[in-house]
Amino acid sequence: MLSVDEARTRILAALRPLPAEIVALPQAWGRVAAAPLHARLHNPPADLSAMDGYAVRAADAVGGARLRVRGEAPAGHPFDGAVGPGECVRLFTGSVMPDGSDCVLIQEDADRAGDTVLVREAVARGRHIRRRGQDFAVGDMLVRAGRRIGARDIGVAAAGNHAWMAVHRRPRVALLATGDELALPGDPVPPGGVVNSNTPMLGALVRAAGATPVLLPLARDDVAAIAAAADGLAGIDMLVTIGGASVGDFDLVQSGLAGRGLELDFWKIAMRPGKPLMHGSIGVGDARLPVLGLPGNPVSALVCSLLFLIPALAVLSGECAADAALQPERARLGAPLGLNDHRTDHLRASLTTTTDGGFVVTPFPRQDSGMLRRLAECEALILRAPHAPPLDAGAEVEILRLDRLGI
Amino acid sequence: MLSVDEARTRILAALRPLPAEIVALPQAWGRVAAAPLHARLHNPPADLSAMDGYAVRAADAVGGARLRVRGEAPAGHPFDGAVGPGECVRLFTGSVMPDGSDCVLIQEDADRAGDTVLVREAVARGRHIRRRGQDFAVGDMLVRAGRRIGARDIGVAAAGNHAWMAVHRRPRVALLATGDELALPGDPVPPGGVVNSNTPMLGALVRAAGATPVLLPLARDDVAAIAAAADGLAGIDMLVTIGGASVGDFDLVQSGLAGRGLELDFWKIAMRPGKPLMHGSIGVGDARLPVLGLPGNPVSALVCSLLFLIPALAVLSGECAADAALQPERARLGAPLGLNDHRTDHLRASLTTTTDGGFVVTPFPRQDSGMLRRLAECEALILRAPHAPPLDAGAEVEILRLDRLGI
Repeated sequence: MLSVDEARTRILAALRPLPAEIVALPQAWGRVAAAPLHARLHNPPADLSAMDGYAVRAADAVGGARLRVRGEAPAGHPFDGAVGPGECVRLFTGSVMPDGSDCVLIQEDADRAGDTVLVREAVARGRHIRRRGQDFAVGDMLVRAGRRIGARDIGVAAAGNHAWMAVHRRPRVALLATGDELALPGDPVPPGGVVNSNTPMLGALVRAAGATPVLLPLARDDVAAIAAAADGLAGIDMLVTIGGASVGDFDLVQSGLAGRGLELDFWKIAMRPGKPLMHGSIGVGDARLPVLGLPGNPVSALVCSLLFLIPALAVLSGECAADAALQPERARLGAPLGLNDHRTDHLRASLTTTTDGGFVVTPFPRQDSGMLRRLAECEALILRAPHAPPLDAGAEVEILRLDRLGI
Repeated sequence: MLSVDEARTRILAALRPLPAEIVALPQAWGRVAAAPLHARLHNPPADLSAMDGYAVRAADAVGGARLRVRGEAPAGHPFDGAVGPGECVRLFTGSVMPDGSDCVLIQEDADRAGDTVLVREAVARGRHIRRRGQDFAVGDMLVRAGRRIGARDIGVAAAGNHAWMAVHRRPRVALLATGDELALPGDPVPPGGVVNSNTPMLGALVRAAGATPVLLPLARDDVAAIAAAADGLAGIDMLVTIGGASVGDFDLVQSGLAGRGLELDFWKIAMRPGKPLMHGSIGVGDARLPVLGLPGNPVSALVCSLLFLIPALAVLSGECAADAALQPERARLGAPLGLNDHRTDHLRASLTTTTDGGFVVTPFPRQDSGMLRRLAECEALILRAPHAPPLDAGAEVEILRLDRLGI
């Protein structure tokens, strides 16, 4: 059986970032930059005052000097002239520094009477000026390709005078749950039936990862039904199947996709929860469509999606840091742990903060993968490597925090 | 001047959660539950097999016994009969346990020949059964009111047979930037002009907080223009003004809103960047509309939005943990810090991980609040209390991580 890391490496290696599209600046939030964005102007565009006060010449602005106010320059209304010897111009935060001036006398240090200002404190040359291009210059890179766009990136792109951004297209992910036992949420549940929680749950996870879910209708446990579902995948970037468990995980899915040119990469990995995980591709038109087959158990499906689907969507989205969501953090155990077996384990756990700002992570006593409500309540997964030794309470472990991922 | 904490307490105290609306389950992701959600069925809905194998009676399932296979029960197709002495029924993960059976002989421990199964390993009563209601029972609370809905909550709501959820309405936030110097991103920038980065940046921040931004057209530095903008706020839940800096922060905004019944709570707080912060309300129809006035400097506006607007939107959204985004973490300083003055400071900093899993946070050498690109590059803010003493490199400080907030 493959290790978790090997499996992830093989899944990600088969993927390429999707092509670019242009979106209006406000729509770029949460997307991934497809090209570096360069400044179209200097910021600030001119030497600006950083304070409310008076534009003066440092040579004149000595304590006790009196300067004549030649005019004013509110932000957006540059002074149409120059500051000569013995003169000053009233200005405000963001005002353009008038010609001839070389520093700002802040208003707290100025006594104004009519057209005259008394300098109460000398000013050094260059004081309280935000220099043209001090933040960035024309041509400077403002946003690098592959970066997930946050609000501050939108701000800096706007400041660089961009109304549009090139971003990678959102991955479209088809979710296909299979099983005769499944009913849609809210529908009547027949005897022996269960509600399909996986499709809406993983649809939300796909959205949390910045991609677009396409929730396919449920497929019966029938090879022809699964094959038929695979015929409606034009425009889809990844197929995620869920379950097939009633006749052994994935047997049926593999049979159903076999007639659609399934090339199987692997279908079993050494992890818990979630041993059966299928990876491969099918033919759609002339192209190959990546396929990820998740176990039907919702706890297993969610953990496998965190470990494999979210990074896969990051690669398709063009994100540089494909494993950004999977950076483990450290916490101390709130309860002892036994020896782990040969499978990487992901223990559902609660998280508390200690007075010194550290974290204590306590595994739930029951780790049954049928416990969906416990999964929803857990705040972190404790990562346990194969054959990890027993640990006492207080020992340090690696965790993945779920509360921050929108999942 | 108010402290940051006092200011936030006063802003939040003036707000109430918005009313509820009903959304289809997939649309509930990222919203806040307006009512507790209770299970409509047991999960599992019946005793189910946790494995592929055979439903047997523990009394029969002793090593070496041979059992007659009476039929099979794939998931979704319960066996229509009972398992009698010396009998078994083929089943799969998720199959309903047939009447008469009390445990599962897993297929790895069974040798099948025709209609007979040889028991290779004895099975204890109750083994490999997921009990009806083991995850949750009818009426159990699945999602508590005030919880921000993640993918796992969607999953558990679906498993409880819900196709809809009651969530708080999304706050609608009007953003009004003022200033004669402002140009829209992409437009020609006249001499003395600057591009308005605040409205799109804060619009993205509002979206990151799960609310809906309404980007108002730019208002000139004119009392009548600002008053006129305040006349189009029906259906808005909060007004955020930005700037007015050309004649002293907020003077003009306060004058413009005075004719719309402005009741000022405060307008200055002891923090950096961002001293001028206005809080109050205006009259819209018969109601009071909360108003937050941000400084026009983009760095100040962003930091003030993080500290005050994001928690305010959490309260309007009905979220229990209104300060969830503001939980400080601990990191060690990568460079010494001097004595702080009387204002709470928020130093822009980079963050690196040490080999032992800790964080080192290094303040940027220049903290000029005109440096928008540096703000976009920073990964954390170092929190410095008023009069905080000098610290050596290696000392522990509190930080707010920005990279996780979508801002």
